[in-house]
Amino acid sequence: MKYSYEGLFNFTTNVLVNMGFSHADSMECAKVFLAAETRGFATHGVIRLGDYYKLWEAGRINTSPQVKIVHQSPSTAVVDGDGTIGMIPAKFSMKLAIEKAKQAGTGWVATRNSCNFGISGYYAMMALEHDMIGITMTNASPLVAPTFSAEAMLGTNPIAIAIPAKNQPPFVADFATTPINRGKFTIAAKKGVQLGHGFAQDAEGNPSTDPTVLEKGGSMLPLGGDREHGSHKGYCLGSVVDIFSAVLSGANFGPFVPPMVAYLPLLDQKVGDGLGHFFGAMRIDAFQDGEHFKLMMDKWIGTFRNAKPANGCERVMIPGDQERESEARTAIEGISLIPQVESDLQTIAKRFNMDWIG
Amino acid sequence: MKYSYEGLFNFTTNVLVNMGFSHADSMECAKVFLAAETRGFATHGVIRLGDYYKLWEAGRINTSPQVKIVHQSPSTAVVDGDGTIGMIPAKFSMKLAIEKAKQAGTGWVATRNSCNFGISGYYAMMALEHDMIGITMTNASPLVAPTFSAEAMLGTNPIAIAIPAKNQPPFVADFATTPINRGKFTIAAKKGVQLGHGFAQDAEGNPSTDPTVLEKGGSMLPLGGDREHGSHKGYCLGSVVDIFSAVLSGANFGPFVPPMVAYLPLLDQKVGDGLGHFFGAMRIDAFQDGEHFKLMMDKWIGTFRNAKPANGCERVMIPGDQERESEARTAIEGISLIPQVESDLQTIAKRFNMDWIG
Repeated sequence: MKYSYEGLFNFTTNVLVNMGFSHADSMECAKVFLAAETRGFATHGVIRLGDYYKLWEAGRINTSPQVKIVHQSPSTAVVDGDGTIGMIPAKFSMKLAIEKAKQAGTGWVATRNSCNFGISGYYAMMALEHDMIGITMTNASPLVAPTFSAEAMLGTNPIAIAIPAKNQPPFVADFATTPINRGKFTIAAKKGVQLGHGFAQDAEGNPSTDPTVLEKGGSMLPLGGDREHGSHKGYCLGSVVDIFSAVLSGANFGPFVPPMVAYLPLLDQKVGDGLGHFFGAMRIDAFQDGEHFKLMMDKWIGTFRNAKPANGCERVMIPGDQERESEARTAIEGISLIPQVESDLQTIAKRFNMDWIG
Repeated sequence: MKYSYEGLFNFTTNVLVNMGFSHADSMECAKVFLAAETRGFATHGVIRLGDYYKLWEAGRINTSPQVKIVHQSPSTAVVDGDGTIGMIPAKFSMKLAIEKAKQAGTGWVATRNSCNFGISGYYAMMALEHDMIGITMTNASPLVAPTFSAEAMLGTNPIAIAIPAKNQPPFVADFATTPINRGKFTIAAKKGVQLGHGFAQDAEGNPSTDPTVLEKGGSMLPLGGDREHGSHKGYCLGSVVDIFSAVLSGANFGPFVPPMVAYLPLLDQKVGDGLGHFFGAMRIDAFQDGEHFKLMMDKWIGTFRNAKPANGCERVMIPGDQERESEARTAIEGISLIPQVESDLQTIAKRFNMDWIG
């Protein structure tokens, strides 16, 4: 079924208020959940409210956090998220990176003791209105095997980078460091079809096209797929995200990242606090005249958009185009939820004696 | 044939001195050429002396550059390389990033009006002895087609990231944002074998396994290969390298990057000066206690190194291991040059009335 932005936004806010988050925090988190829905990342949208609900039930989420700066220099800081939902320390940290950049030219914040924060692109884009480039990374529960490894050691560890232009829309890249996301495994499994090659391996590290292989001890492969096609580069990228997000901040890294789902127990060994994120803001005019830079970005975007399309392709896209088209579409058509998500949210509504949407 | 480090280092230095570079600059450049040879990147080693020789002959390289800072903030700067060989402004810029980081916690330098600088990893690693993380990017002549494009718009645009550890060797990632480098095309063409799938396309954007396709108007594909396997993520990465290196600095971006080879004419249209690089240095103790960070990096490296190997694989490697093994090997065995490179260098030696090595 289709839902209006307002209906789903208010519902999400109310669920979070019922868990014990402040109304202001709940609205700020709801904006990020809804941005995932409108920008075409439904796997990071309200479907995750169910996971958060279960973590909250298990007492594994702090709803009254004292997010704070624990270390800083003119252009850097480390933030402690106090074990709350990721959106709260993420917004705090990105705002801090922007403030640092106003003074020092750039700002870089590593955040620990946090949890899943939704879509990375949301925070990177916060820099745009300040005429800054925004950068966001986060680590995540281990699902991805390094090149030559049988074991999953890294999350899908996304990177987002937002760069302002003048008359063109901004350049917004937001991508996991794996060829596909976990959602594609679920969809293939539901349809009863095999995955393509280059996406997964079994528990022994043999290539696999079984969409249920992750539940059988298998792993996702890094961007590149196999060594011949550059999987060691995807492994490098995922590792850098992990180290910047977790070793610089003092969070759990690699296989020590705590599970996002309450049905998995917390790990015996911890090497830091919660999971970690990394945020950057670079003031354009700390490098170039701001107007000149934005005109050159218009030129960059126009040049790439006008490249001759490959045989059978309609046009060359700019990072961010697909998400903007999704936003335009959902603004007219509303936001679709699949029946399983509707049912999960209805269960939460009942638990809190809330009305279901609409 | 095999050559000693000293022999090849002195020869390289003397070639550059004969072109008109100062002795000090020539030695600094020779270190980077030789680092490519010892670290296993022969495609970026002394083979490039031939390209530089021809650029010099054509009057397209400034051998008495005034490299200078043209804009700065506490944590940033833009450097103008004055149209010289890339190693000179690259070292200047990375040193400046390190100095900025000492004061502001991090330092970020965008460099324009430069040329090919050899291996990215060299500059990223300059940060290690200062207990900093080093980052290097550069754009390059267009060879790579964005997803859905028939035209090459981006270079192989590498990224290097060096992260210090305590008792473990450092984490050093240094990779092009394509599945393979151009050298693999040349080798396949010489052997008369086809490339694998996912590396190249023809002039119309159809998949191609022809190793000579680049000379026929074809393009390399970004990391990921095709859209299904995430080539749009490789395209994002290559684009970010291009924008940070060239739009932030005021260099030529994308298809406007000037050719590295003197037999190609300079382009009619320029959108900036020369090609561009981007350098970053982050002081570890601007985030964490330095000792704690390095111990945690030891733990990170040890954990990943001890992951169970995939079926048929010997061990899981850490970014930088392969290059260190190459350094150890060449230190014992000497540096191999293929006959074509030997012959090119002998031609240069004759031109300058220099003795050939050994």
